[in-house]
Amino acid sequence: MTTQEQKAIPIPQVEARASIPTQNLRVPGPTVVPPKVQAAQAAPMINHRGPEFAAIMKRVTLRLQYFFQTASPVLIYPASGTGGQESAIVNLFSPGDHIISITIGNFGDRFAKIASAFGLEVTRIDFPWGQAADPAVVEARLKEVAPYRGVLLTHNETSTGVTNDLQTLATLLRRLNPDALIVVDAVSSLGCVQLEMDKWDIDVVLTGSQKGWMIPPGMMMIAASQRAWEAHKSAKLPRFYFDWTLARKSLDSWQNPYTPALSLFYALDVALEMMLAEGREAIFERHARAGEYVRSRAKAMGLKLLSDHKNASNTVTAILAPEGIDTKTLLKKLREEDSVVFATGQDHMRGKMFRMGHLGFFSEADLAQAMDALEKQLHALGFQG
Amino acid sequence: MTTQEQKAIPIPQVEARASIPTQNLRVPGPTVVPPKVQAAQAAPMINHRGPEFAAIMKRVTLRLQYFFQTASPVLIYPASGTGGQESAIVNLFSPGDHIISITIGNFGDRFAKIASAFGLEVTRIDFPWGQAADPAVVEARLKEVAPYRGVLLTHNETSTGVTNDLQTLATLLRRLNPDALIVVDAVSSLGCVQLEMDKWDIDVVLTGSQKGWMIPPGMMMIAASQRAWEAHKSAKLPRFYFDWTLARKSLDSWQNPYTPALSLFYALDVALEMMLAEGREAIFERHARAGEYVRSRAKAMGLKLLSDHKNASNTVTAILAPEGIDTKTLLKKLREEDSVVFATGQDHMRGKMFRMGHLGFFSEADLAQAMDALEKQLHALGFQG
Repeated sequence: MTTQEQKAIPIPQVEARASIPTQNLRVPGPTVVPPKVQAAQAAPMINHRGPEFAAIMKRVTLRLQYFFQTASPVLIYPASGTGGQESAIVNLFSPGDHIISITIGNFGDRFAKIASAFGLEVTRIDFPWGQAADPAVVEARLKEVAPYRGVLLTHNETSTGVTNDLQTLATLLRRLNPDALIVVDAVSSLGCVQLEMDKWDIDVVLTGSQKGWMIPPGMMMIAASQRAWEAHKSAKLPRFYFDWTLARKSLDSWQNPYTPALSLFYALDVALEMMLAEGREAIFERHARAGEYVRSRAKAMGLKLLSDHKNASNTVTAILAPEGIDTKTLLKKLREEDSVVFATGQDHMRGKMFRMGHLGFFSEADLAQAMDALEKQLHALGFQG
Repeated sequence: MTTQEQKAIPIPQVEARASIPTQNLRVPGPTVVPPKVQAAQAAPMINHRGPEFAAIMKRVTLRLQYFFQTASPVLIYPASGTGGQESAIVNLFSPGDHIISITIGNFGDRFAKIASAFGLEVTRIDFPWGQAADPAVVEARLKEVAPYRGVLLTHNETSTGVTNDLQTLATLLRRLNPDALIVVDAVSSLGCVQLEMDKWDIDVVLTGSQKGWMIPPGMMMIAASQRAWEAHKSAKLPRFYFDWTLARKSLDSWQNPYTPALSLFYALDVALEMMLAEGREAIFERHARAGEYVRSRAKAMGLKLLSDHKNASNTVTAILAPEGIDTKTLLKKLREEDSVVFATGQDHMRGKMFRMGHLGFFSEADLAQAMDALEKQLHALGFQG
């Protein structure tokens, strides 16, 4: 097309901006953000190379280390959790490396997909949706595979509402292969349920801002063990934006290699203060009570869960659609009539289930209102229970 | 290290959180954010797969197309501008591709570095800091190089305060090689100075949220021409997070492939409304007046600029440190005594100059206060002018 043929782009005719509704947002991320954290984002911009930001960066990084339970530096990027998965892969491995992917749902699948996209040789150990990774099955499979450089696994699978027994799996993986890197997607678990990165000898842990951290999406946090930093030195996959070496070097002066997401840093600074005030173990207990409450209410209504009780997640519950109930209609009525927002099922489970988030910032009353509304709407749609 | 040797991570002792100061932030990004845009970030979270977000995503995307002056979709990522540079490279090229990098400063250098990191064959055409790319030199060099797939260039070089004559360069590049991809880093120019993506037949334009868009950092926006989308189909560099195909597919339902930075979308939605109210050409004129004012004030004080007048940027001015003036002391006094924040020189120009941003949200009074304070502090430090 020549220059002459190009038309000027007109100002688009669009729907006017509406105010953002306040809802009982019960999706498994983004979570509800506490008012104090919401307000923190409205602070003025500052120079990200100046002393004011360095103080924030230092405080946030050190407090994240406490929640990651690691002595390793925590690196922070403007990115989603998927960016965290990619960051782990490009910083640890070289083209053709053989790795294992233990997959129990959609986000485990994505982790494996990224590894394949970057030219790794991926052996998958898949478990059906709703089940956790069975250590005995993992052990049997790993004894018959070719040598491998690392294992990717999910702590809490957001798509199925299942939490892997990470401590048991990490212990097993370390025993079977002392040198293989254990790489954990903890996007929807860290800060909500117990994960002791150093004690459990995990090599990489990554998470996303819009989950247990109670701030809006847009930031990804990742930490690597000494073993992982060693592997990083010889890892040959191409990288730049997510290159850990650059981030770690900048951390020496409490900076980022590129412009950080300042308003999300402001939010995280306040959120971490709130989390410390509540107490790490108290937060874990609150999430455990939430998971227990949601599961027992769902069962009392006559609903079936995707996950078995033993491995049910304390941050997200996947509820199977009862026979004859259209989940699209159900979720629409809940949103429009009760301001309660659940998430749909993903992938092959779309329309067959829905998911309820109970992580980050919530009260017991929020969960009760959501379950009451669900019960009411199910009955309105003819569900007998 | 065995499990037993790992010590529990204690709660870190850190400096208490201080309130964020309101300053006359005159760095070339992040820019000052208008109060209405600051406040917009504090709105509640919503489901990024729901209808409320789809309306925002649609409005923001279409309005960005107007400011990019392109009929192509604008893709939006949680990332910095550097992520945008990486996104362009991994989506357009294959390992070993020969490309040209026209570099006039630090951010042009970074673009070339990313290309090399991803295994491209890079021929650099460098110009000294403070100068724009000379079309005659570019033409002479391009006539002697091996065939090339694309050309990377910077519209406005934030490190030197120089704006390339992009229209002339793009016309030249297209004439010399009708098939080569013209890839433009417009991080600190788009939305501030004229850039007609489609009319100038540019293949990729990328920008960052914390510049002309008047919102905090953390989002990157990028658009590709039909020629670029064609090239993308056969581009073999590994990618996932920044894969345009995934983003474009999600755009069909006004969604993102991964969780978007919601509060920054809220901010951008309001900022674009303000930009349309002001008018695109009026914004360009305001930036032209700002550049002219800052340069004339600096010269009247007896200061020298890094750039020659002809190619001086209307979004950032690089001022050379006068003989005997320590820029570190000068910038510290300005920050602490006058709440005026300038940026340091980068790379080999650290300590030899400082930079003043005049882009995004500012008033003439902001610029006057900054220049007045600069004049006062220079005199206090013994500068005679």
